[in-house]
Amino acid sequence: MIRSIEESPLYPIVNPKSIAFFGASNTFMRMGSIMLSSVQALGFEGRIYPIHLTEKEVRGCKTYSSIMDLPEAPDLAIIVLPTEIVCQTMEDCGKKGVKHAIVVSGGFRETGPEGGKMQQDLESIAVKYGIRFLGPNCLGVANPHIKLNPTPLKAEGPPGFVGLASQSGSFITQMFDYLHRQGMGFSTALSVGNEANIDIVDCMEYLGACPNTKVITLYIEGITRGKKFIETAKAITAHKPIVALYAGGSEAGKNASRSHTGSMSGPNEIYQGVFRQCGIIRAQTLTELFDYALALGTIRRPRGNRVIIQTHSGGPGATAADACGRAGLMLPPLSMETVEKLKPLIPKTASTANPVDMTFSKNHADDFFNIPDILLHEKNADMLLAYFLTPSIFIERILKEMGVPAESIPAERDKMIVQYADAFCSLKKRHPDKPIIGFTYRSLQEKMVRHLLDQGIPVYQDPERAARSIAAVLQYYKMQNDITKEAPCNP
Amino acid sequence: MIRSIEESPLYPIVNPKSIAFFGASNTFMRMGSIMLSSVQALGFEGRIYPIHLTEKEVRGCKTYSSIMDLPEAPDLAIIVLPTEIVCQTMEDCGKKGVKHAIVVSGGFRETGPEGGKMQQDLESIAVKYGIRFLGPNCLGVANPHIKLNPTPLKAEGPPGFVGLASQSGSFITQMFDYLHRQGMGFSTALSVGNEANIDIVDCMEYLGACPNTKVITLYIEGITRGKKFIETAKAITAHKPIVALYAGGSEAGKNASRSHTGSMSGPNEIYQGVFRQCGIIRAQTLTELFDYALALGTIRRPRGNRVIIQTHSGGPGATAADACGRAGLMLPPLSMETVEKLKPLIPKTASTANPVDMTFSKNHADDFFNIPDILLHEKNADMLLAYFLTPSIFIERILKEMGVPAESIPAERDKMIVQYADAFCSLKKRHPDKPIIGFTYRSLQEKMVRHLLDQGIPVYQDPERAARSIAAVLQYYKMQNDITKEAPCNP
Repeated sequence: MIRSIEESPLYPIVNPKSIAFFGASNTFMRMGSIMLSSVQALGFEGRIYPIHLTEKEVRGCKTYSSIMDLPEAPDLAIIVLPTEIVCQTMEDCGKKGVKHAIVVSGGFRETGPEGGKMQQDLESIAVKYGIRFLGPNCLGVANPHIKLNPTPLKAEGPPGFVGLASQSGSFITQMFDYLHRQGMGFSTALSVGNEANIDIVDCMEYLGACPNTKVITLYIEGITRGKKFIETAKAITAHKPIVALYAGGSEAGKNASRSHTGSMSGPNEIYQGVFRQCGIIRAQTLTELFDYALALGTIRRPRGNRVIIQTHSGGPGATAADACGRAGLMLPPLSMETVEKLKPLIPKTASTANPVDMTFSKNHADDFFNIPDILLHEKNADMLLAYFLTPSIFIERILKEMGVPAESIPAERDKMIVQYADAFCSLKKRHPDKPIIGFTYRSLQEKMVRHLLDQGIPVYQDPERAARSIAAVLQYYKMQNDITKEAPCNP
Repeated sequence: MIRSIEESPLYPIVNPKSIAFFGASNTFMRMGSIMLSSVQALGFEGRIYPIHLTEKEVRGCKTYSSIMDLPEAPDLAIIVLPTEIVCQTMEDCGKKGVKHAIVVSGGFRETGPEGGKMQQDLESIAVKYGIRFLGPNCLGVANPHIKLNPTPLKAEGPPGFVGLASQSGSFITQMFDYLHRQGMGFSTALSVGNEANIDIVDCMEYLGACPNTKVITLYIEGITRGKKFIETAKAITAHKPIVALYAGGSEAGKNASRSHTGSMSGPNEIYQGVFRQCGIIRAQTLTELFDYALALGTIRRPRGNRVIIQTHSGGPGATAADACGRAGLMLPPLSMETVEKLKPLIPKTASTANPVDMTFSKNHADDFFNIPDILLHEKNADMLLAYFLTPSIFIERILKEMGVPAESIPAERDKMIVQYADAFCSLKKRHPDKPIIGFTYRSLQEKMVRHLLDQGIPVYQDPERAARSIAAVLQYYKMQNDITKEAPCNP
């Protein structure tokens, strides 16, 4: 295990100050050009040196015809060239003194024996010069915290707490928008490709030491260094959660993985066992992977599994209760004390069983602060699961009925919504020991929920997803406990 | 069973030409006023008669102090009054000759013995006058096809093919926006509440006969007329699919259901057995309920379970393959003939295994027409599952690089996207026997996917949801087959 993040071979790859870029030109529809344009789009502040035989300037950057001509040995080389010239390029980098690279080019092991031979050559060259590299057949790295994104799609949304080590590059570059919509962002995302030199274990180790990463997510098609994987994961899960999506769980998934990165998947049960042994939460789908990451990154360890559901609609309450039941969560009855405190605030048709169903609610201020505050004081409960129907529809109508001019309504409405959302968010600080989770069937982009997400309240688009994510958090701490008991982790 | 839809007691409730409205006033924050405003918002073209003791005009409609004063006996009375005066109001309706009603008011059986007694009185009055009614404790009906929506939230999106009979009113009024976002809409939605007079079986029967309804969805907390339910459902599933969400599957869900509508849930296994016996697809969550409905309403019966996955990214391909594997779908290898046809259109790093991974694609016209067309001709496959990353990002970049002025880019981009989407949609007609399903991790509201959804191509936000929905379609036809074999359905 590394003792500090700077010891990781990935450190200069994730945090370069200067990059030599092979394969970008002024012809736009080339992968290299697209990737360089992504780096520029996010506003990377380091030095960029495009290398091109004939162009004098590429995308506004002074261009060099050979790496030998650069004024320095850059921290990182990004290689997006035809397979045939990758080895020679790596050799040149070695001669210049470059110590870290990302090989984006495909056409190696994943294409068969001939490509496999070329990959071996590439590995030998790297060893000869002491170069550590990601790939080949990968998309490299995204580190939005330093505005570094060479992957083909533009980074969207602010940086976040999700670390990703992925055997698919798509699951980095195609996920910026997805994560942002769900209320998250990447801390650092690493695409490992064929893992010729740096593998997913190295990435996990890096993310374990990365201060911006609160949760590590893994997309796995096959693990090669099994023993080291287990040892590293175990050491990490003692202090930081890991969630893994293994795509080779079914026969069809296994075959697809093989033809994608050429990795060998193993039987589902073996992976299941490995994950359990290391304290890794397993996700079956990408949706689950990031759902679990959201809860693990935003809520504290609950004291137990007792949930109070707050709703103003019976159906959503009942489906949430059912989802909690299926996920192994308990719904305790409210204490008499809590019921008494609620009574003045809710209509007589309301239910003070759990789910607490306020039915038709007249006072939004109560819904978003007073009522959940009472529920969070309930001594028999460990957390609150709240249903959000956007109040904006009602607020708009009320403002309209009150005679507020049409053109003022959106601003007035948004002001009120932010007020309610802020009041709700303040409960998080007021009850630090009791997690607050939300669910809604409306778009997460509507003002109210978007504001909650931005303030670190996890809100899901189905109570099932919320309940399973809560269960994943409980499972993480339980496994952590079990592992710590069996062998104490490093101090 | 009814022989025609007009025979259903629900016909005048779903298709009224005139409505007496009790409980709406010029005080906006009353449920009755909100509901009347919904009816007006969608533009119901029938006659509306608000009944109010003191107001002369309510929300712009001439108002009557008693139902007796109306110029006609309206087709429907909607009652949103305090519990205590509901029975008397029903009595008045009976005297006027009203034969159909929706009782929105709560405070009956769901609140305990006293409310139960009032509900019995209400039932007796209805029987005395031959009134058929929905409720009490319900939100009534939404029939967007005739612009009728008395439920509290405004209807969003066009009418669609999803019929819903629900023991939760929220799952009507709070779902307009949800369904629209997923590419669907209600044909007719019915909230049954306490089912004092009309129950979920009557609703199912109505929707079975409704020509606008292609798929029936049920939200169930408890079934009372078990035998009749089975008999009716069986007759319907012989020609129209039914998907059911039962909220009492877990102990927690059962308890929540009881306090919501006072209905008695039964053991999970009994409901499971009932659904299977009738050929009803069971959904575990609301997301599944409507996911399955989308596939059942948009794709034809596949000839078998063999899927080709088209992707340009390995990770999404592998997770889709894994999801298909878990859902019991097969991924056949492509025939040599298909592989040969593909070769000129794909780069050499592409994979012609299944998933077909085009990797970096250079020609969108191929991606959206020529390649899927070849795949749909594959004799070893029954359907196509295609991955959609929005091409708009690339198109925007290309246009920008080509020097198209910034202000013209959005329109140019949208024109191209619609062209591609139309080309893709045309495959549906070209291959009517092979269903086409999509998945994406981006928002369904982005132009490309939105256009596909609007043209009836189901696209899901995770391959798991797509694969499970395909499996639900296969399961429906298999169950239909089994049931038809065992006892032929009505001609």
